[in-house]
Amino acid sequence: MPAVDKLLLEEALQDSPQARSLLSVFEEDAGTLTDYTNQLLQAMQRVYGAQNEMCLATQQLSRQLLAYEKQNFALGKGDEEVISTLHYFSKVMDELNGLHTELAKQLADTMVLPVIQFREKDLTVSTLKDLFGLASSEHDLSMAKYSRLPKKKENEKAKTEIVKEVAAARRKQHLSSLQYYCALNALQYRKRAAMMEPLIGFAHGQINF
Amino acid sequence: MPAVDKLLLEEALQDSPQARSLLSVFEEDAGTLTDYTNQLLQAMQRVYGAQNEMCLATQQLSRQLLAYEKQNFALGKGDEEVISTLHYFSKVMDELNGLHTELAKQLADTMVLPVIQFREKDLTVSTLKDLFGLASSEHDLSMAKYSRLPKKKENEKAKTEIVKEVAAARRKQHLSSLQYYCALNALQYRKRAAMMEPLIGFAHGQINF
Repeated sequence: MPAVDKLLLEEALQDSPQARSLLSVFEEDAGTLTDYTNQLLQAMQRVYGAQNEMCLATQQLSRQLLAYEKQNFALGKGDEEVISTLHYFSKVMDELNGLHTELAKQLADTMVLPVIQFREKDLTVSTLKDLFGLASSEHDLSMAKYSRLPKKKENEKAKTEIVKEVAAARRKQHLSSLQYYCALNALQYRKRAAMMEPLIGFAHGQINF
Repeated sequence: MPAVDKLLLEEALQDSPQARSLLSVFEEDAGTLTDYTNQLLQAMQRVYGAQNEMCLATQQLSRQLLAYEKQNFALGKGDEEVISTLHYFSKVMDELNGLHTELAKQLADTMVLPVIQFREKDLTVSTLKDLFGLASSEHDLSMAKYSRLPKKKENEKAKTEIVKEVAAARRKQHLSSLQYYCALNALQYRKRAAMMEPLIGFAHGQINF
């Protein structure tokens, strides 16, 4: 385990084998984190789903208690008492359901949502990786073109063109590598906080409940 | 709505049109109660199911928190703190899960089970109704046989046979009607308590939780 916690942007410009090797360590870490976050999100969504189902279930039960009154029982003697007790229980259940709904909402906002946002904002390093890869191949391509140029004098104009192309490709590659390095650094920076935030949301919701 | 709350067993023996008419009121009431109880049971099983799913979901989330440690992150710097915090949250979640499991168990035992038992024990009047119907047709059949008997002297032996058959059929019909009446009376007696019992179980479980 290397004792580094960020990629140096200077290394991005040099693009040395050492820099590439260190980059791959950060990439591996991001990959593991993506897998873990997806599993974590799935587990959290299951908790949220259960909480939501609890709301719907207590709602249905509360309605079912009220429905007793509307059954038109052929023998209704003594039912007034049952009906008023069922009404009372239905009210208690509605109050409980209010608490469950509040908890479900809190779990959605403070537990599930932060993980979704983390995944969308910080874990999109793979897109930047693709752009970086694309820019690198373009750069390699224009370099190859340049090296295949005949050394004759009359090619001076074509040479100038290709030199321009190489320079543009290099700028593009530098830019995309800087963006990619920055995103990987930001991910390391956010990683631990991103794990804690939804749990604090969960705990907070439970305490309120 | 008739101001009666039970069927008189004497009426079962007389089997008058008035008795049959009153019987049909009790039968209608039992039918409505069966439908209502089935819906109530379904709503209660949904609440229990949601509670159970909540147990499983918090278990999964707790395990997922512990799994962070085993991810072999390529960059583990500063992870000790995250891991110990996740362990702590996992413990809190296990404790919460213990409470959820206890509640789920209580809901099963004191809310769902009484309704199931009520349905199995008290709402089986339809079986007794079938037996009563069967005994009635048998009785009608032997009565018809008796009335078709020729009035001649030499049939004395056959007549004795059929009289015995009629008597047996009548006894059987009386017995089944008494059982049926008793069950319908018991159902009316149990009805209100059966509605209250699972709700008290529900409330008790929630208070403990």
